[in-house]
Amino acid sequence: MESFLSKVKECSAVVATLDGASKSRILRKMAEALEKGSERIEAANALDMAAADENGLSAALKDRLLLDGGRIAGMARSLREIAALREPVGRVLEGWRNDADLRIEKVSVPIGVIGVIYESRPNVTADVGALCFKSGNVAILKGGKEAAHSNAAIAEILQEVLDRNGLPKAIISLLPDGSREGVAALIRQDRYVDLIVPRGGEALIRFVSEHATVPVVKHDKGLCHTYLHEKADFEMATKIVVNAKCDRPGVCNAMETLLVDRAIAREILPKIHEAFRAEGTEIRADEEACGIIEAALAGDEDWDTEYLANILAVKVVKGIDEAIEHIRRHGSGHSEAIVTEDYSATERFLDEVDAACVYVNASTRFTDGGAFGFGAEVGISTNKLHARGPMGIDELTTYKYKIYGKGQIR
Amino acid sequence: MESFLSKVKECSAVVATLDGASKSRILRKMAEALEKGSERIEAANALDMAAADENGLSAALKDRLLLDGGRIAGMARSLREIAALREPVGRVLEGWRNDADLRIEKVSVPIGVIGVIYESRPNVTADVGALCFKSGNVAILKGGKEAAHSNAAIAEILQEVLDRNGLPKAIISLLPDGSREGVAALIRQDRYVDLIVPRGGEALIRFVSEHATVPVVKHDKGLCHTYLHEKADFEMATKIVVNAKCDRPGVCNAMETLLVDRAIAREILPKIHEAFRAEGTEIRADEEACGIIEAALAGDEDWDTEYLANILAVKVVKGIDEAIEHIRRHGSGHSEAIVTEDYSATERFLDEVDAACVYVNASTRFTDGGAFGFGAEVGISTNKLHARGPMGIDELTTYKYKIYGKGQIR
Repeated sequence: MESFLSKVKECSAVVATLDGASKSRILRKMAEALEKGSERIEAANALDMAAADENGLSAALKDRLLLDGGRIAGMARSLREIAALREPVGRVLEGWRNDADLRIEKVSVPIGVIGVIYESRPNVTADVGALCFKSGNVAILKGGKEAAHSNAAIAEILQEVLDRNGLPKAIISLLPDGSREGVAALIRQDRYVDLIVPRGGEALIRFVSEHATVPVVKHDKGLCHTYLHEKADFEMATKIVVNAKCDRPGVCNAMETLLVDRAIAREILPKIHEAFRAEGTEIRADEEACGIIEAALAGDEDWDTEYLANILAVKVVKGIDEAIEHIRRHGSGHSEAIVTEDYSATERFLDEVDAACVYVNASTRFTDGGAFGFGAEVGISTNKLHARGPMGIDELTTYKYKIYGKGQIR
Repeated sequence: MESFLSKVKECSAVVATLDGASKSRILRKMAEALEKGSERIEAANALDMAAADENGLSAALKDRLLLDGGRIAGMARSLREIAALREPVGRVLEGWRNDADLRIEKVSVPIGVIGVIYESRPNVTADVGALCFKSGNVAILKGGKEAAHSNAAIAEILQEVLDRNGLPKAIISLLPDGSREGVAALIRQDRYVDLIVPRGGEALIRFVSEHATVPVVKHDKGLCHTYLHEKADFEMATKIVVNAKCDRPGVCNAMETLLVDRAIAREILPKIHEAFRAEGTEIRADEEACGIIEAALAGDEDWDTEYLANILAVKVVKGIDEAIEHIRRHGSGHSEAIVTEDYSATERFLDEVDAACVYVNASTRFTDGGAFGFGAEVGISTNKLHARGPMGIDELTTYKYKIYGKGQIR
């Protein structure tokens, strides 16, 4: 591990000082190489799919794992989009002169060596490798075991392009030891690794947080609420909550709990209930809501459960105070929404709810790098520090101060 | 610990939503209270000073510990300066409309609960408490044992002002259990604590990094270099290096190693040697430099030693490549300087040296929140993420996205 990491660390100076045009050109070559390597990738993927059958993976997981011509073309398209992003390195973020007349510039620079731990979908290998490359970082990628062959084929193709362009292959590396011990070793190598990004289930995130000495930006749970305030527009509210729950129930920005103001509960809940019935959504409601609509009675654990499925918890609240308090207790700080036409309620909700993304009159499903306009995303950070919410390419940079003097001393 | 932290966490919603004018008014009241409480603080400090005598603390440490009328007035002045800083919460950092016509604002918000671990100087209690308060955070302060009475007196006075203004005292808390076990418990409470800032020696920093599950922004080592390029102005170079080493040798932005280009070594080293002799600086030089000036021969360990004393390591380098490479190997990523009139050397040094602050023709001593114009500082971060270099009040905030819709769904 140490010899691998010291080699990787040496590459970081190389990729950090590449100019933007070269990086974009190489990324477009990578896109081309993925397209040309389609058969090779599909052959590797077939091995993973066969193993998935043997190991009895669920249909949903197998779908995430599968790579066909269309998905490989999608990977190539994504690389071309990343190539076209604004150069993230060297942006002057601030600049001023201090009292000693030093000219100070705060400039974006690569972070260095970034380890990314992820699961299932092999396109992440290309996406994250490309995002790290474009931002001047070395990527150490650790995908899921179930996608090992696919990830290796993709990484090899990207590395061949690096090599053909006179760059060290290690700029986009797969972690050589992908076991739990390998991960445990990686996250403690703060001499060599500057950032760990774990994307995945709570167990992985907990393990990494517990044992890392390298800084961690977590991408985990989304327990998102939508609160229907008494001044909500009913039609808008219904559309928003159905979208927030049902568009893609398995993702982190989907709604898990609906909070309905007591003032409108009798009137709006039946309408919402009907809309969700059309979507086949299972509803678990508190006692008060169960008095209005037919639903299973929710237990205490429902308020803390990220279903990642077409299930919705529903609770009637006394007003905005109780809504905010419920979110404070049970929210994961990811995405929270209020539906209302009331100005003061809007201001209070936006200010008092402590989450990465707080919405008025929109679906929480918009919490996404692409939807925000960042281009491809590394993930959605549930950290408060460094990157919060959708983590785009700019969040793969840090900054340095460049200070221009003319002999000043203190 | 848990009951203390859950109380503290509850306060964070209170202080986070205080308006700027109220915070400034209360900070000015705190300044007044410190002045009025001068005798009480001095009496507490006398207990610490007596213990310091008993425990045989060095004169330097006792000087850092001492509080007299002048220093208490200085603390009050610092609080008034913090009161006058621009409101750090609610700044709109960016704003745009996305493709779905959502109006997205990235807005600065308090981090939440911040634990700060520091040593010796009791004025840090007032400074950091005030910076956290002004930025809407709860502060958990853990000062050095040797300053326990002084810190308690200062914190009590600040807490009394909070109380008189109808605010919970816990907004500025001392860690109840200041033992190593207490610290070990604090840094693992990621449910309650959002950030740990350790300021101090390497052992403390290492301990915190090893065991924390809470994100850490470290403030530790400064192993700073100055490189005299062949096109350096000799007079300017001499002034800068003497200032960087001798102005305050015990601080992290002081120079530890001087790198001299071979092309000018024979000419400039004797001049520099003379200037340092006048300052009583002990010089440890490599073989080549020892052939030019009279100095002790440096050992390998000298290139990695932060002397924090009036000692300087000197090395002759072949050119800018060797200078950058030496800094890459031995630097701590804090502050690095080049002295030159050469444009291309400047650009290369600024781009290729990976440090928080990179200087051209100025003393590394300027790496400081005050000198940068940030007002009071929390410290100088040697992290790459969240805050790098001087950490002012803006770095005590994070951000959230406020998203204004009109019924948008995906």
